[in-house]
Amino acid sequence: MKSGADRPLEASGNSPVSPGAPPGYSIDAFHRGRFYVLQPETEGHRAGLDAMLLAATVPAEAKGSLADLGAGAGAAGLAVASRIEGIEVVLVERAPRMAECARQTIGHPLNARFANRIRVIEADVTLRGEARCATGLADRAFDHVIMNPPFNSVRDRTTPDALKAEAHAMDSSNLFEEWLRTANAILKPAGQVSLIARPESLAEILAALGRRFGGIEITPVCPRANDDAIRVLVTAVKGSRARLLLRDRIVIHAGAGRNFSPMANDLANGRANWPRRARQSAQNAPK
Amino acid sequence: MKSGADRPLEASGNSPVSPGAPPGYSIDAFHRGRFYVLQPETEGHRAGLDAMLLAATVPAEAKGSLADLGAGAGAAGLAVASRIEGIEVVLVERAPRMAECARQTIGHPLNARFANRIRVIEADVTLRGEARCATGLADRAFDHVIMNPPFNSVRDRTTPDALKAEAHAMDSSNLFEEWLRTANAILKPAGQVSLIARPESLAEILAALGRRFGGIEITPVCPRANDDAIRVLVTAVKGSRARLLLRDRIVIHAGAGRNFSPMANDLANGRANWPRRARQSAQNAPK
Repeated sequence: MKSGADRPLEASGNSPVSPGAPPGYSIDAFHRGRFYVLQPETEGHRAGLDAMLLAATVPAEAKGSLADLGAGAGAAGLAVASRIEGIEVVLVERAPRMAECARQTIGHPLNARFANRIRVIEADVTLRGEARCATGLADRAFDHVIMNPPFNSVRDRTTPDALKAEAHAMDSSNLFEEWLRTANAILKPAGQVSLIARPESLAEILAALGRRFGGIEITPVCPRANDDAIRVLVTAVKGSRARLLLRDRIVIHAGAGRNFSPMANDLANGRANWPRRARQSAQNAPK
Repeated sequence: MKSGADRPLEASGNSPVSPGAPPGYSIDAFHRGRFYVLQPETEGHRAGLDAMLLAATVPAEAKGSLADLGAGAGAAGLAVASRIEGIEVVLVERAPRMAECARQTIGHPLNARFANRIRVIEADVTLRGEARCATGLADRAFDHVIMNPPFNSVRDRTTPDALKAEAHAMDSSNLFEEWLRTANAILKPAGQVSLIARPESLAEILAALGRRFGGIEITPVCPRANDDAIRVLVTAVKGSRARLLLRDRIVIHAGAGRNFSPMANDLANGRANWPRRARQSAQNAPK
């Protein structure tokens, strides 16, 4: 990522802790040391604020099962499992090296507190029908789906880093259609999907959601007050007919330098969440 | 309208001035007395902040011709003509009584400063092809189109006021598709369309824009900080391939009671505009 949200967690107390990491990898603390993620040190998409904001959309009262589609090393899924005791998490990742990071992340002694509630499925999110079910992603199996799809469009894919390119590249103009089709298929009725993406994808996201979901809630994420949004945080409910809500934005930085705003800091560090406004069901009610 | 933006202009110095108005009508001052609109006193949609925000999206340097689709009594179109000397305005309105209001508005002595640059076409915005051209809305004739479509959805159309129902009701699920099809047809290449609508219509708006326009810019409009948006102000450029931008919101109220924020006050009173962020062309450059 090149934007203002590029690895911003380092500004808020989540510093890498590398002892025990294999060469070329780091073990990074999140939520001020509540959990740790093993990830490639320089290659690939490195988890940061995007993953923490995405995880914050799952309400504190959530129960049941959650799938993190395109989980990478697992930061978003771990943020949910660490914060919410009542939930089981499945990390879905296609790239073998990132899936291996996710497995090592789960197995790390510092994550033992919730490791028994997380597992990895190494699979392509865009698989359909029986091929998808065969990987363990069954129809109507999940209460929540979260996703941080590879959202760099082709036109700015200039990185020579193949692993990063895979994590960031939009291989297809149908990316949101394909990922949200899978989300819909594996969610139970009234299940919640959450995603984080670039605002430029809003039309594709709304089109793909519209055929399957309702109660869409969009939260813009702006680097600073008066800046254009660099991300949208979107949630929706399978089968809902509720109207779309456009919520006020989350501002990342306030004050001098790279300091986080109080809200962004709380969200980045797991001290606050960002539940849906609408009470679709008791499970989705705000705290 | 039932929302927080319901006739808010009265809070900012645009008070009705009824001397000379026929019974059942009022003559309302806008932009602190820079222009006046004759409109039904109690029936129908009464122009307010929505129209002023919409007009503010036309940049101060605009030249050529502008069509105000669904103009009602003409408030948005007059706000453009009053503020921008280089522009000719066509008010397009289907309802005979509102079109007559628009004609009387133009003919009012207090609007003589710019009345020679405004005219009314009494026509249905959804007309197509030759039927549309026959009304005077020719293909590729306009540099700008602004529209405040009737945006109450059927599910909250509870008003017994027939004129208001016509102004507010979404007669068809294809409203934005039909209105933006006309906007596209009558705009010159690289012409700008602007609309104000409810956030719940965002999916329909983006779908209808996507087939014809690019460079979409969305500005949420929130009653107060931390409130959900009650309107979206959307602009786009015919034939552009620029990415969608989601801008930071306009907040209507600040401080105690119904006071406007400084920005909303300036926009409501014609002392500020809200030009596009992107420089699509010299004409659209911010001040």
